[in-house]
Amino acid sequence: MPGLIVQKYGGSSVASADLIKNVARRIAGVHESGTRVVGVVSAMGDTTDDLLALARQVNPEPHDRELALLWSTGEIVTSALLTMALQALGHESVALTGFQAGIKTNAFHTKAQILDIDSRRIDAALDRGAIPVVAGFQGFTEEMDVSVLGRGGSDTTAVALAIALKADRCEILKDVDGVFTADPRVVPQARKLDHISYEEVMELARAGSQVLHPRASELGETYAMPIMVRSSFHEAPGTTIVRGEDMPLEGRERIRAVAHDTDVGRITIVGVPDRPGIAFQVFQPLEAAAINVDVIVQNVSQENVTDISFTIARSDLTKAFRLVQPVAQEMGAREVTSADNLAKISVVGSGLAANPGYAATMFGTLADAGINIVSITTSEIRITCLIDETKVTDAARALHRAFKLEEA
Amino acid sequence: MPGLIVQKYGGSSVASADLIKNVARRIAGVHESGTRVVGVVSAMGDTTDDLLALARQVNPEPHDRELALLWSTGEIVTSALLTMALQALGHESVALTGFQAGIKTNAFHTKAQILDIDSRRIDAALDRGAIPVVAGFQGFTEEMDVSVLGRGGSDTTAVALAIALKADRCEILKDVDGVFTADPRVVPQARKLDHISYEEVMELARAGSQVLHPRASELGETYAMPIMVRSSFHEAPGTTIVRGEDMPLEGRERIRAVAHDTDVGRITIVGVPDRPGIAFQVFQPLEAAAINVDVIVQNVSQENVTDISFTIARSDLTKAFRLVQPVAQEMGAREVTSADNLAKISVVGSGLAANPGYAATMFGTLADAGINIVSITTSEIRITCLIDETKVTDAARALHRAFKLEEA
Repeated sequence: MPGLIVQKYGGSSVASADLIKNVARRIAGVHESGTRVVGVVSAMGDTTDDLLALARQVNPEPHDRELALLWSTGEIVTSALLTMALQALGHESVALTGFQAGIKTNAFHTKAQILDIDSRRIDAALDRGAIPVVAGFQGFTEEMDVSVLGRGGSDTTAVALAIALKADRCEILKDVDGVFTADPRVVPQARKLDHISYEEVMELARAGSQVLHPRASELGETYAMPIMVRSSFHEAPGTTIVRGEDMPLEGRERIRAVAHDTDVGRITIVGVPDRPGIAFQVFQPLEAAAINVDVIVQNVSQENVTDISFTIARSDLTKAFRLVQPVAQEMGAREVTSADNLAKISVVGSGLAANPGYAATMFGTLADAGINIVSITTSEIRITCLIDETKVTDAARALHRAFKLEEA
Repeated sequence: MPGLIVQKYGGSSVASADLIKNVARRIAGVHESGTRVVGVVSAMGDTTDDLLALARQVNPEPHDRELALLWSTGEIVTSALLTMALQALGHESVALTGFQAGIKTNAFHTKAQILDIDSRRIDAALDRGAIPVVAGFQGFTEEMDVSVLGRGGSDTTAVALAIALKADRCEILKDVDGVFTADPRVVPQARKLDHISYEEVMELARAGSQVLHPRASELGETYAMPIMVRSSFHEAPGTTIVRGEDMPLEGRERIRAVAHDTDVGRITIVGVPDRPGIAFQVFQPLEAAAINVDVIVQNVSQENVTDISFTIARSDLTKAFRLVQPVAQEMGAREVTSADNLAKISVVGSGLAANPGYAATMFGTLADAGINIVSITTSEIRITCLIDETKVTDAARALHRAFKLEEA
């Protein structure tokens, strides 16, 4: 049994008073078993989105400093309530804001990075047998302003605290049981993985599987902090994320999981004169609008004319189209088209690097299933195909079978 | 035009995004007129009560430290939103928590007292032409914990800040136009007072008129900080609270206002053996349960047996009855009765001290109106009669007329 663990509970695990009481019982159980435990919590349910909506009602473009301050209240509320719930169970517990937990960040108020953690207050609480409950997602700047860490923030808080406290493990408790070989709602044969590597989890996140924010994985990898993703609703062990070399042999050299993502929109600029600088002209306004461009494909140019297509989140499609159209016109492009009927299907696994044959297996499996591949992108341990959205379930099931992912 | 004012906006003035935008326009108007201004805000609407209800769902008796932390988020949300609204109007503005505003308190987390204010951050903001917006009701302890000031907290924050900043005036903006000679909903002839003394406001509060918390009045009096109570919805000047000696002559030596209070419950312990210590035995459990006892009447004892009766808030009646009954039984009392059909009617004014005839006028007026007086209590500048609740409107109107309060 480890000596110290950090447990992070996400928004859906603390969305009501009853759920918070469940979490308190869970944490109390760990404490009573003799393991020291530090809680890290997200804001309840949709609080963060609700606060942003409120902010936009008074100012369509709220300043980052005030937005961070506003957002930080959500996690403080949860930390205070969870602490009260632990106290109701008879345990000494202390709620800590990001400032009180000593989480120093840089001054990018709404997407701050943790610089250092002064854990004296947490250490003191643990030393006297109390359970510290830290408000996730937040820290403080040198100017004594409140900062928040941006997307994936509470996961990052938990991993960073585990590192600073030299914890044995960081646990991310969610409404899923762990990392699966595929989304069980789509592939009934999907199997929970006991282990996966940080790198594989990062690639799965890029492929659309929301298990752990890549930022938290990356931090975990740097300091080799084991991270267990597990259910907040029952006690079964989840998936432990470790370094590739620390994985059991069974997990290496394989395809580990199939991931799919239907939140895909594609824009194609057809017949654009191919000259230096066109990519910059197209993507600069998208970047300025904070639209994240995923896969970019530029066709081989013919007679100095080419097509450029790229994918983005489907919710950004209308906005991106509006931004790209005038630029394309100015460049003399023939037309701009958009598509909202595509999806990404990916296979991920460290085995890909060593087995070029896996790519052929993927393409062959999709071909056998009569699924047309619109475009392909790869990383060292991931292959992603853009396909018709209506074929995504078929594709996931066929690939899961082809790579024998149902077998441990 | 004063050089610096502190404006405090209460919960009902900031209960929605639209109301917050109104407040921003109001503050911006002051700023644009060349007067430096510091905003102090309460939590939106019923936030404080809602947070308490949430806390009680996870712990029926939440610890003070965590309750203070939980409550503090309400005012932080408002300060962030109001700052955003001011920024949307093109003004530089900075939201400050109690900690950032330098409001140091003692360690009574939920009823803390301000020890000192380190106003460097507010001063710096004002010096660069920005509008500081401070989260009211809260401060921080020596241990770097969050504390809240208890009832009347945001008013107290505003007055304390005005004193620390050497402001020309503290304005309390509310959903009423100022201090009236009576509640205008009960006495249509009621007139807004231009001036009133701190002492009179404190006595009005004790008599049930919720204009300004006595704690804020007392602080204002100690440092002779003028406090104007005025409407947050329009620009008309309200009532300025000053020291008695700074009042215009017209206001002195008079009855200033009639106040009534129907939030009254009374408990009577009948036939209790009169021996030393009985008052302590009765009131100690009430104090322990944080039930505020108002008027206590102990009859002249006959044959060593007496009656004790006291008033409390009507909402505390059931709880108090349950606490008192076993104690009374133990003391050998004949019975315990409770009444929830009484009300307090009071007249307040510094004139009372110099004019003993005013008491006779009050009793005579009530008698002429056929209103029976259950009991009487007085302070130097207040007379309060306990009467039947159904007579309270008649009593208020008759007294308003008798003391010619409709005449300036």
